[in-house]
Amino acid sequence: YYQQRLKVNAASSNSSRIKSAWMSDPITSYEILEENPDEMRYKFEKMIMRVQGELCRLLEKEDNDKKFLVERWARKEGGGGITCIMQDGTVFEKAGVNISVVHGNLPPAAVAQMRSRGKDLTGKDLPFFATGISCVVHPKNPHVPTIHFNYRYFEVTDEDGSVQWWFGGGTDLTPYYLDKEDVSHFHKTLKTACDKHNKSYYPRFKKWCDDYFFVKHRGESRGVGCIFYDDLDNDDQDKIFKFATECADAVIPSYIPIVQKNKNKGYSYAERMWQLLRRGRYVEFNLVYDRGTKFGLMTPGARIESILMSLPLTARWEYCHEPESGSREEELLKVLKEPREWV
Amino acid sequence: YYQQRLKVNAASSNSSRIKSAWMSDPITSYEILEENPDEMRYKFEKMIMRVQGELCRLLEKEDNDKKFLVERWARKEGGGGITCIMQDGTVFEKAGVNISVVHGNLPPAAVAQMRSRGKDLTGKDLPFFATGISCVVHPKNPHVPTIHFNYRYFEVTDEDGSVQWWFGGGTDLTPYYLDKEDVSHFHKTLKTACDKHNKSYYPRFKKWCDDYFFVKHRGESRGVGCIFYDDLDNDDQDKIFKFATECADAVIPSYIPIVQKNKNKGYSYAERMWQLLRRGRYVEFNLVYDRGTKFGLMTPGARIESILMSLPLTARWEYCHEPESGSREEELLKVLKEPREWV
Repeated sequence: YYQQRLKVNAASSNSSRIKSAWMSDPITSYEILEENPDEMRYKFEKMIMRVQGELCRLLEKEDNDKKFLVERWARKEGGGGITCIMQDGTVFEKAGVNISVVHGNLPPAAVAQMRSRGKDLTGKDLPFFATGISCVVHPKNPHVPTIHFNYRYFEVTDEDGSVQWWFGGGTDLTPYYLDKEDVSHFHKTLKTACDKHNKSYYPRFKKWCDDYFFVKHRGESRGVGCIFYDDLDNDDQDKIFKFATECADAVIPSYIPIVQKNKNKGYSYAERMWQLLRRGRYVEFNLVYDRGTKFGLMTPGARIESILMSLPLTARWEYCHEPESGSREEELLKVLKEPREWV
Repeated sequence: YYQQRLKVNAASSNSSRIKSAWMSDPITSYEILEENPDEMRYKFEKMIMRVQGELCRLLEKEDNDKKFLVERWARKEGGGGITCIMQDGTVFEKAGVNISVVHGNLPPAAVAQMRSRGKDLTGKDLPFFATGISCVVHPKNPHVPTIHFNYRYFEVTDEDGSVQWWFGGGTDLTPYYLDKEDVSHFHKTLKTACDKHNKSYYPRFKKWCDDYFFVKHRGESRGVGCIFYDDLDNDDQDKIFKFATECADAVIPSYIPIVQKNKNKGYSYAERMWQLLRRGRYVEFNLVYDRGTKFGLMTPGARIESILMSLPLTARWEYCHEPESGSREEELLKVLKEPREWV
């Protein structure tokens, strides 16, 4: 079912056609991008520009050709981003597909956060470069899950001038009702992408994802996860780049068929209320735990509206809500409380 | 206008009538409360039981006699609380009036937080006792502001057996539309309470409140503030207790008349949407910055539903929302970006 429905944009071999598929001019000038085809920061930027364009066009198509709002912004301290937002569509309540390409000096809090993760960084006011794509799609229909993904590349220049680089990323799914077939399709698609590069990746990154998206104070996961990795630096840079590209390219075939399958299903008022409650939990994770959000909130000159585009259009908090025993809501909660294997 | 409308419950002189006005049995047994009339932790508990009862009854009256749900809960690690919640009323969308009386050992993260505030605490696993009342009222009508207050008493026993105690508290207002007369009445009522004890309190605590409720990443305050204080310990214990009692007793005359004045006003769909957006900002403050919420989320065995009752029933996040120039929404934002004097 899932594969038949999808034709992946096959335009990626022709350079002029690539550019016309981008959502805007890139942050780095076309000249610099073309003159430095082997430098990772530019390769990464071109890759995420392409992924942003492909995904936005497909989401627009799914939402009866409603268009994304595209905002290209600059950061006083260096760099900028391209924020694409669709709000209050027919199918999507809020969808954000963001790119950022920023550089400057790391704020002390960020250096401390990195050191606590084991980075060996000496000196202060360290120059950094960070580029990534970040996306959250909150659909209207409670039978369509929320997707989130983020692929990023990071460089920090140490006091002695040496450059440390690493990759991070992940894709995860947050359903409101459990459709095991959908979840299993989603995980399989990402597992296939991982397996092409390293058979140990999927099991490791699946576990990492379950751990990362665990909402401690609730004793439950944000969703059914999928993969998450950070600080990936112990392989050939190009190999890790290809792995990140493979994962980013797995977003469309993993998610769009699920949207198509469920977007026209009927739902009740109670099902919508349950979705809004779960969106409240989504907000709790993002504001209390998410590392990217925290990094953003403490980065001087960060564009708050782009960081917080991950928050849903609407959310709800009911005191002591508990799903009825035997209900589909309870079925979901059980899976959130005890993560499962899906492949 | 404000004074005429209000009859404060005058039952507080008769001990049996006091108890019948409480929302439930206290956390500490009646016997212990009666046998230790001079001990601060029990005096404080009785005071907040009375304030909880008086406020809940009045809010019920304002909401056409809709009743609070009362839950008395125990904490495995020691102590418990009384959570009173009204949800989806005619006047109040969500109102929580909570008491907690907890003891045990301080989690290391809490000790670190206190040390960073300048507390001189030696040793680890320090026994603590904390009691307080905490309340948030989110009305349905955008012309009625949200109120929050919290009054608390804290004891920590140091390694050498010496007990450090302090008081904290505050009351603040979060309007969705600015009614200067209402804000000024609110501030005046609290200022009068402060002035009876120390003329320096209101100006100091007003400033402290503005600083505390500032949402850094937005560059705006949560609301129009009023008073906030913490670590108050440099006076006679009984004097500080009387001050806290005075402030807690100022909640009703400061807020209820504002509810009565505005609760039946008409409002548009756009005004309701604006209120929900502002509630989103309320959620941002509470989850990202609020010290009490953070303390709660990291306290083992804490009752999450009581801590997060402060979150509104509904909230909304629109990308890059900006009020129209010259609108009443913009008028409010200006005040949030630059706190004013109201008395």
